[in-house]
Amino acid sequence: MDHAGKLRELAEGMREADLDLVLLFDRDNVRYFTGFRLNRAASSILAVERDGKPTYIVAQLDFERAKRECWIEEVIPFPEDTPNYLTVLAPLFQRGLGRIGVEKRCLTLQQAEYVRELAGDRVELVDVEGLVAELRVVKGEQEISSIQRAAEIASRVMEEILKEVRPGVREAELVGLVEYLLRREGAEGASFEPFLMSGEEAAWPRRVASGKPLREGELALLDMGAVYEGYCSDITRTFAVGEVDRERKRIFTVACKAQEAALAAIKPGIKASEVDRAAREVIEAEGLGKYFPHLTGHGVGVSIHEAPILDRGVDMELRPGMVVTVEPGIYLPGVGAARVEDMVVVTHTGYEVLTTAPRELV
Amino acid sequence: MDHAGKLRELAEGMREADLDLVLLFDRDNVRYFTGFRLNRAASSILAVERDGKPTYIVAQLDFERAKRECWIEEVIPFPEDTPNYLTVLAPLFQRGLGRIGVEKRCLTLQQAEYVRELAGDRVELVDVEGLVAELRVVKGEQEISSIQRAAEIASRVMEEILKEVRPGVREAELVGLVEYLLRREGAEGASFEPFLMSGEEAAWPRRVASGKPLREGELALLDMGAVYEGYCSDITRTFAVGEVDRERKRIFTVACKAQEAALAAIKPGIKASEVDRAAREVIEAEGLGKYFPHLTGHGVGVSIHEAPILDRGVDMELRPGMVVTVEPGIYLPGVGAARVEDMVVVTHTGYEVLTTAPRELV
Repeated sequence: MDHAGKLRELAEGMREADLDLVLLFDRDNVRYFTGFRLNRAASSILAVERDGKPTYIVAQLDFERAKRECWIEEVIPFPEDTPNYLTVLAPLFQRGLGRIGVEKRCLTLQQAEYVRELAGDRVELVDVEGLVAELRVVKGEQEISSIQRAAEIASRVMEEILKEVRPGVREAELVGLVEYLLRREGAEGASFEPFLMSGEEAAWPRRVASGKPLREGELALLDMGAVYEGYCSDITRTFAVGEVDRERKRIFTVACKAQEAALAAIKPGIKASEVDRAAREVIEAEGLGKYFPHLTGHGVGVSIHEAPILDRGVDMELRPGMVVTVEPGIYLPGVGAARVEDMVVVTHTGYEVLTTAPRELV
Repeated sequence: MDHAGKLRELAEGMREADLDLVLLFDRDNVRYFTGFRLNRAASSILAVERDGKPTYIVAQLDFERAKRECWIEEVIPFPEDTPNYLTVLAPLFQRGLGRIGVEKRCLTLQQAEYVRELAGDRVELVDVEGLVAELRVVKGEQEISSIQRAAEIASRVMEEILKEVRPGVREAELVGLVEYLLRREGAEGASFEPFLMSGEEAAWPRRVASGKPLREGELALLDMGAVYEGYCSDITRTFAVGEVDRERKRIFTVACKAQEAALAAIKPGIKASEVDRAAREVIEAEGLGKYFPHLTGHGVGVSIHEAPILDRGVDMELRPGMVVTVEPGIYLPGVGAARVEDMVVVTHTGYEVLTTAPRELV
């Protein structure tokens, strides 16, 4: 489905929810419908009227490019550093609006005040996060193709990094190399701040790369991903720095087995919590349950974390076209961290793995 | 001043503003007071009581590290993926609070609802952006030292990149190299998404690096910066790819002259708008005024953009210890873009330049 098709789906949802206008401020939601890439420091707003007509507001500096590159016809610049930049939307408010859809997890108090200045105090602000998330949760062919490409890029970069893992190289330098290689391989950039955590300190866990050098006998965990045509990938591998002892090999093996169990559970109709359960049971059976402190996986698309979340208590059922990570991990004080993360797309019969870098502890 | 000292200043400001509690959600504000580095994907909250006592709420995954590395004694984890994560702060609300300071440009509707659930509907939410910005605007010795180091790293990286500029190399690859070199030179990472824009398309201006190769005869503009100990730097240089013609040399020369004029204006007591005026006059005198569509400069600190903004209509006077960029630019359709950006710290007699990479068109 092209971007116009996605917007038609939104307009349909708006009619069902009786919304007169939707204002999207979340950069991932905006990109989902516009397809337009902005510098991460820039912001923009997508307004969609009841009949599905979009208006796209971008910074003055991005205006000329947006007019040329974005499929949306109505592009308006908003002046930077002025109060209520939403006044450029005043014509859309003239009819008198009753219900406006906004993202309550994203819209700020200041923006809400700007909306009320235009729409009046009696307007009802309705949360549309769920509506948009539902549109985004099952990926179309084109989206899967972009995600697959992002996964291929990340896999290739992971293989390159593997060659650079040796005692003495610093965590931050390898992360810098990831950032370079992702772009050399054609990505827009990293899908999140990559991190490499090595040694015992990885068990805290430390989610930023430091100046610490890798040392012989440690495990080193690298979590990273690419953005391609606006879509993210996410992959983790655990490396052995030189020879590692039995305890380190053991937590790595358990993490792998847990991942395999979770993967084996993936098929249409299964609940997200059941996939999580499959991973958790393997780790608990080894007496390591309390050292697995996070979710088993999460959806990936325009956002690096989106629905469905594979975790305890999540009832959402998997459907063909959903893309999720599977990444149970073990963080053992005095030993270190081990995790293997892959991305899969749910198919009609099970799943297909998108990330291809070797999984072995090398 | 250490982080505890900064917090004491905030507590003083709270007393003057009659605030019972301040809740900071903005990651830059939080880092300013905590000094604690998080992965960019992670969030945290700093609560400060009327007597200045801080409570720091971090994700479960960052909890152990925050307890070890952060100076704040009261660190609390909040569960991920639960409704109202602010309930962990319930004890701070027991006394019944009248006025709570928040960042209205940052606090979301959802977070505001969480605050009201705890504090009651009668609580008054007061914007503290200005209060905190005023604390941050003049930098102390330690802060200037970190900023200087960030500027040195960025300057070294700029010199390295200069060696790689040649026809055929792609914009995105050079940006990837920036990301790598920043970390190799000791930065936490880039202070914003670096961008390199080359050729005529740079005049739009295009604020993202693309897969486009540099071509003989073009101007190429690289804007980037480092983060060191939480503090940012920001530098732009314009390169000539091979030999460039007179028109390109001319816009480069005008951009440089405008920058020199703005720099010459910098001293304590001058208004931000007057520095901007100095740059703009040079460009207007050359008949290029309409091709300089942005501000002349901005403050830099924990945030890449902060007060003071050097632009039209900004009355703030410069004071010793402020750190600003000076970056007038020219974006001429059919020709390209030229800009030279340096960072300076305002001194008692004038200014000192922090960025040292060569400015010449090479």
